[in-house]
Amino acid sequence: MNDKKFETIVSHMKNSGFVFQGSEIYGGLSNTWDFGPLGVEYKDNIKRAWWKKFIQESPYNVGIQSAILMNPQVWVASGHVGGFSDPLMDCRNCKTRHRADKLIEDESKGTVNPGGWSNEEMMTYIKEHKIACPNCGSHDFTDIRQFNLMFKTFQGVVEDAKNAIYLRPETAQGMFVNFKNVQRTMRKKLPFGIGQIGKSFRNEITPGNFIFRTREFEQMELEFFCQPGTDLEWYEFYKNACMSFLTNLGIKAENLRFRDHDAKELAFYSKGTCDIEYNFGSQIGWGEIWGIADRTDYDLRQHQETSKKSLEYLDPATNEKYLAYCIEPSVGCERLMLAFLCDAYDEEVLSEKDTRIVLRLHPALAPFKACVMPLSKQLSKEAEAVFAQLAGDYNCEYDEAGSIGKRYRRQDAIGTPFCITVDFDTKDDGCVTIRERDTMEQSRVAISDLNRWIAEKIKF
Amino acid sequence: MNDKKFETIVSHMKNSGFVFQGSEIYGGLSNTWDFGPLGVEYKDNIKRAWWKKFIQESPYNVGIQSAILMNPQVWVASGHVGGFSDPLMDCRNCKTRHRADKLIEDESKGTVNPGGWSNEEMMTYIKEHKIACPNCGSHDFTDIRQFNLMFKTFQGVVEDAKNAIYLRPETAQGMFVNFKNVQRTMRKKLPFGIGQIGKSFRNEITPGNFIFRTREFEQMELEFFCQPGTDLEWYEFYKNACMSFLTNLGIKAENLRFRDHDAKELAFYSKGTCDIEYNFGSQIGWGEIWGIADRTDYDLRQHQETSKKSLEYLDPATNEKYLAYCIEPSVGCERLMLAFLCDAYDEEVLSEKDTRIVLRLHPALAPFKACVMPLSKQLSKEAEAVFAQLAGDYNCEYDEAGSIGKRYRRQDAIGTPFCITVDFDTKDDGCVTIRERDTMEQSRVAISDLNRWIAEKIKF
Repeated sequence: MNDKKFETIVSHMKNSGFVFQGSEIYGGLSNTWDFGPLGVEYKDNIKRAWWKKFIQESPYNVGIQSAILMNPQVWVASGHVGGFSDPLMDCRNCKTRHRADKLIEDESKGTVNPGGWSNEEMMTYIKEHKIACPNCGSHDFTDIRQFNLMFKTFQGVVEDAKNAIYLRPETAQGMFVNFKNVQRTMRKKLPFGIGQIGKSFRNEITPGNFIFRTREFEQMELEFFCQPGTDLEWYEFYKNACMSFLTNLGIKAENLRFRDHDAKELAFYSKGTCDIEYNFGSQIGWGEIWGIADRTDYDLRQHQETSKKSLEYLDPATNEKYLAYCIEPSVGCERLMLAFLCDAYDEEVLSEKDTRIVLRLHPALAPFKACVMPLSKQLSKEAEAVFAQLAGDYNCEYDEAGSIGKRYRRQDAIGTPFCITVDFDTKDDGCVTIRERDTMEQSRVAISDLNRWIAEKIKF
Repeated sequence: MNDKKFETIVSHMKNSGFVFQGSEIYGGLSNTWDFGPLGVEYKDNIKRAWWKKFIQESPYNVGIQSAILMNPQVWVASGHVGGFSDPLMDCRNCKTRHRADKLIEDESKGTVNPGGWSNEEMMTYIKEHKIACPNCGSHDFTDIRQFNLMFKTFQGVVEDAKNAIYLRPETAQGMFVNFKNVQRTMRKKLPFGIGQIGKSFRNEITPGNFIFRTREFEQMELEFFCQPGTDLEWYEFYKNACMSFLTNLGIKAENLRFRDHDAKELAFYSKGTCDIEYNFGSQIGWGEIWGIADRTDYDLRQHQETSKKSLEYLDPATNEKYLAYCIEPSVGCERLMLAFLCDAYDEEVLSEKDTRIVLRLHPALAPFKACVMPLSKQLSKEAEAVFAQLAGDYNCEYDEAGSIGKRYRRQDAIGTPFCITVDFDTKDDGCVTIRERDTMEQSRVAISDLNRWIAEKIKF
C-alpha cells in the first residue's frame, strides 16, 4: 500500500517547476497543465526511454510521426465516429450533467465496473441503487445519451459538415493507415512494429486527478504486427516488456499489477487485453497506466473495408496473402510521469530534527543529471567551465546560492542524482567532489572523466 | 544558386520513408503529411540539436512544454483574435477564393511585399495591375475580407461561444504567460530565456510546397527576456547564434542570407525583425526559415493589461520594477527539415555510367547513425551482436540483403554516415570495416571502440 499523500506530491510538483496550471494568469483553462523547466526535461526523458526500449533497441520496430489532423474517414473506420462516447445524463432538478458509468463506479466504491454496459443496464442499476445527483441529491435524471469525445474543428474557410475534422483521440490509427507505406519503404517482413509518441485529445466530461486524466495528453503507442497464430506469444512478450520497463526504471514491484479484462469488458475482436495498474495511493487507488491488447486483424480489416485499399501482407515464405494480427501496448506519458513521481517521492528522516525530501528518480529520468556548485563564488570561473563541459552531453543545473548543504537539499527535492562541487583543491588536482543523492556518499573524480562517469551511472 | 530539382527531392523523400501523404489510403487530407521511420528520426535529431544549443548548453535558458489548448483570453491579449487573419476575396465568376496578398506577390514575381498593406491598398494594386483570377482569368472580385487563421473547437458538452477555444497558432504565448512561474520556481535573474518545441496550427488558405507551409506544424521558439537597453545586443547575439546553428550543421553559407524587415513591414512595437532565408531553388526561391525579432515589452505588457496580473520584474541589483524586453528567435521544424534536406541532397557522378544519390546530412541529423551489414548471411549472429551494441546508444539500421555495393548505395541515399561491415576476419581480430558516406573511404575499427568512435564523429 502506497500511503504517500497525493496532495503533498502535487503541490511539490507545482512549487518546484515540474507542472503549472495551464493559462494560470487567466484563471486557467479547466484541466490543462503546462510542464515547467523540470517537467519538460523529465517528460522528454520518459519519452526517450520508451523510444530507446521499444523502437531503437528493437530489431523489429520503427517509429513514425503522423499528423494530428486526419481524414475523417479514418475515424469512421476505427469506430470513433460511431462509438467513442461517454454516457451522459442531466439532473432535471439542478441542471448539472453527469457520466452515468462514473456515478455507478463511485457509488460502488470501484467494486462495480460498468465498462461495456448498455444505457439500459446502467439506468436500471442507478434506479435500483437509488443513486442521487452528487450536486443536489435529487433522483430525477433524464435518459442517458451518448456524447462523442472527439474535439471537432473546421479546415478551410467554411464551417460546414464537409469541412469538419477531428483532433485525433489516439495516435494508433496513424500506424494502421501507414502499414503499407512503412512496410514498403522499410522493406519490412512480419513481425514488425510501428511506434509513435504524440499528442491526443479527448473531450472528457470528468477529467481530473491532476495530470492523471487530461483532455490533451501525450501517448506512446506501439502497433506490433505479426503472423496470425503467433499473436498470443507476442502478447505475452509485450506484457512482460512493459512491466520490465517500469521496474527497470525503478518502480517498486509491489506497486504494480496486471489486471486482465474479463469477458464482458473485452472488445468483441480482442483475444486478450490487460492493464498494468499502479497503486497511486488512497486518492486514486490502483489506476491503469499501460494497456496491452491483442487486437487481432480488426483495425487493418476495418481500414481495408472502408478505404477499399488492400492492406494484406504477402508472406514471402509461403506466398500466402493475409491480414497481419496486431499487439498494441499503449501508454499515456503523463500517467507514467505521475506514477514514477509518486513512487520516487520520499521524505527521509535523517535525525530527530532533520527530514529531507528526496525524489528517488532513476538517473536516466531525472530532469537534471547533475548540479555544478562552486564551494565559494571565487570559484565561479572553474565551476562554469565544468558546467559547460557537462552541458554538451547532459541537462545540468548550476547553483552558487546558499550553503552547500542547502544546495544539496534543493537538488535532492527535484531528483538530481549528482551534485558536483568545485573546491579550492580543484585547480591543483583537476578533480571535483561528487555527492550522490540517494546514499549521500561523496567521491573524488577527475574532471576529464566526469562525462564518462555520469554516462555509466545513467545507463538502463 | 541552388539548382537542384525540388520535385526530385520531394519524390525521393516520399519513396524512401521520410514523408508520406497524411491519411493516404483515404485520398489524403489536404496538406497534411506523416513522417515515416526516417522522417521521425531526422526530425527528432533536429529538435534535439536545437534543444542542445538553445536550452541545454545555455547557462541562461530553460525549456517548458505548455498546453496546445489555452484560455481564449490569451489570444485576445496576444492580438490573434483581433488581427491574425488572411485577406481573402472571391472570384464572382468561378466562385474560387484567393488570398489578395498572395496574388500580388505572385504577379510581381516576389518583388512586391504586401505585408502590412491595408485591404484598400491591396485592392488598388490589384486593379491597377489588372490582376486576374488564376483559375478563370476573370477580373470580377468581391471586396477583401479578413479571415481568422485560428482553428476553433469547443470544450465540454455544449457547442456555444462560452466553450469556444482555439488550437494555438504559435507556441510563444505559452512562454509569456509562464514568465512569472518560471522566474519564481527556477530562481532566475535577467537575462534568461524560455524555450519550447511543440505543435501549432494555422488554418492557412494557401498552404503548399510540400512541408514548407502546412496547417499543422512544429515550432521551436525561444523567448529571451532581458533588461531594456540590452535588447539590441541580444538581438544581434541571437541573429548570429541562429545563423551559426545552420552553418555548423552543414548548410552552405551561400544558400543563406539575412533579410531585415523594412519600416512598413515591421510591427509597430518591434525595434527590429530579421528573417534568415534559405535558397530553396527555383520552385520556392528564397524562403524564410527563421525569424528573429526584438519584441520589446509588448507581449508581457499585453498580458499584464489583459490579465490584471503584474508581470514586472524586480531587479535585485537596483530594486527597480520593470517589464523585461524580449528577443524571439522562432523557427519551424518542418522548414528546417526541408532546408537541410535540399542542401544535403546530391547526385554525385562517380564515373560515366555511375551516379549515386547521397544525402550529405550532418551525422548528428542523419536518421540512422550507422548500418550494420554482415558480408555473408553466415555472419548474421556476429553482425546482430554489433547492431545490439550500437542500438543501445544510436538509431541504427541492419541490412543483409543484396551485394555490399548495393547496400552502401541504399544507405548513401538516406544519409547514413557509416556503414559497418562484419566480415570473416571479424571473429579473429574483433574488428569491423567502417565505410564513410562522403569520402567512401574505409577503415578498420575494433568493435569495443565502435560506440566511442561514432560519438566523436557526430559531435557538433
